[in-house]
Amino acid sequence: MSETTRSERDLAYFDAARSADVVNARMGPDILPRMREVMTIIVTHLHAAVKEARLTTEEWMAGIEFLTKTGQMCSDWRQEFILLSDVLGVSMLVDALNHDRPEGSTENTVLGPFYVEDAPRYENGTNICLDGKGEPLVVRGRVTDNEGHPVVGATVDVWATNDDGFYDVQQKGIQPDYNLRGVFTTDARGEYWFRTAKPRFYPIPDDGTVGKLLAALGRHPNRAAHLHFIVKAPGYDTVVTHIFTPDCQYLAEDTVFGVKHSLIADFRKVDDAAEADKLGFNAPFWAVDRNFVLARNEDVGRNRRAAGR
Amino acid sequence: MSETTRSERDLAYFDAARSADVVNARMGPDILPRMREVMTIIVTHLHAAVKEARLTTEEWMAGIEFLTKTGQMCSDWRQEFILLSDVLGVSMLVDALNHDRPEGSTENTVLGPFYVEDAPRYENGTNICLDGKGEPLVVRGRVTDNEGHPVVGATVDVWATNDDGFYDVQQKGIQPDYNLRGVFTTDARGEYWFRTAKPRFYPIPDDGTVGKLLAALGRHPNRAAHLHFIVKAPGYDTVVTHIFTPDCQYLAEDTVFGVKHSLIADFRKVDDAAEADKLGFNAPFWAVDRNFVLARNEDVGRNRRAAGR
Repeated sequence: MSETTRSERDLAYFDAARSADVVNARMGPDILPRMREVMTIIVTHLHAAVKEARLTTEEWMAGIEFLTKTGQMCSDWRQEFILLSDVLGVSMLVDALNHDRPEGSTENTVLGPFYVEDAPRYENGTNICLDGKGEPLVVRGRVTDNEGHPVVGATVDVWATNDDGFYDVQQKGIQPDYNLRGVFTTDARGEYWFRTAKPRFYPIPDDGTVGKLLAALGRHPNRAAHLHFIVKAPGYDTVVTHIFTPDCQYLAEDTVFGVKHSLIADFRKVDDAAEADKLGFNAPFWAVDRNFVLARNEDVGRNRRAAGR
Repeated sequence: MSETTRSERDLAYFDAARSADVVNARMGPDILPRMREVMTIIVTHLHAAVKEARLTTEEWMAGIEFLTKTGQMCSDWRQEFILLSDVLGVSMLVDALNHDRPEGSTENTVLGPFYVEDAPRYENGTNICLDGKGEPLVVRGRVTDNEGHPVVGATVDVWATNDDGFYDVQQKGIQPDYNLRGVFTTDARGEYWFRTAKPRFYPIPDDGTVGKLLAALGRHPNRAAHLHFIVKAPGYDTVVTHIFTPDCQYLAEDTVFGVKHSLIADFRKVDDAAEADKLGFNAPFWAVDRNFVLARNEDVGRNRRAAGR
């Protein structure tokens, strides 16, 4: 065997010391460059992690079984791998990499699995709390661009759990349809407002593999209390975000890492009978003012641009 | 908010720059130390890979779908995640970490999914090729310890595909039961021998997600031609290995990275009618001599010891 052949073969055979290189060298010459780039990184980190952890055969098998069961829990109604990505902070990281907005823009957070596309469009001021549970809340705000100019006709799509900690779609037949959901539109001054109930914390589905993992990690499954928003207008980067109450006991330990400083809002308790009366509430009630700042699409850094695609 | 509270909260909220630390800081105080160690490493590499690749939202979603479908392909009869581990070289790496044997010991390679536990025990010399296909082969050898002393009564469990490239269990009703499988026992000199057919290359199951991944990576699904062996004796580290033919076209590109230099055997073509006659073969036939060197359990480095368990 010539020296050349020998060294080519050396790279082909398995060798624990340079195992990732051996695997990556096997890729064909004519594949998508981005496929080569991403898989090289994944294989390199995968091998490094196995070596650093000095994974035992039993631990490897436990990992295989965990991934298998996680896949098998997925259905049209449940995505356990997205939940896994969420509780490991990967969903938030991917979002951050893909929505690098100018300073001052409203920040994104997780979409979550309970968004529905066809929520009713309402006039500003409508009360979307259809089951009457929880403490009344009025939300008011303005949508602007990065220069502070109003964005007229932006849609503000909101959804939340009821006071029992469930979304309407988790309790079909128990909650009214579209309870705590609605789409509002900003007026000529860029303003929107609506009435609802103060949100509360709730657990993510924890009866699957992700719930077991959280338990093994000494973590609870609760999300800090929040309202979901999607704010969008033509030409602007769509904002998928929350507002968090500042008083939730899980604020500093939201199980999907959805909390950012800028998303914690000032919820004021208003004990004013006349104000309550105007809103059709009993006093005291809660009020929060929340503006959204949309970045123009062309001002947002995105990975696909960074990757040269 | 006091300075202390503020800085504690800073570590709790998501921050793309130190995202892995935020996730790892969330683990509880009373969990298994090994769980903390392994998950810290996994989360750190996972976040580093996502950042290095600057993964787009669409790529992340493609990854979620790949993992989901991989889990959903698994059944009692198929383990697509083990196959994934195999083609990414992870199975070989985990094996290497867990069987760090003294120099000169026979090396391990992948077990593969087609081992069955209850193969027949045969007298030395038995021909296990029950369908008569392929070129005849005689395998002879000795099992010793690291000092060269014979290991008497060691079991040599062998299995292989037939000349069509399928294991008996993949073709129930087509191949004879236990075709190309058998368990032999070393005699008073530590020797074993049996007759079979020369192995040929074959593809791993490539109609699932792993097959699609291999195609996207410009890789073929073929395993280099080999015979499987499990060699064991009380007090010794069980050897799970192959012998490879030196002339297979896929030797340098075995799709699961199972080839190691030391596992390539010298297959001799014997064109000797008298020798053939003694073996009940027609000339020419193939012959290979293969010794196995077993390491004592106490001389083998294992991760669980390294991890202090």
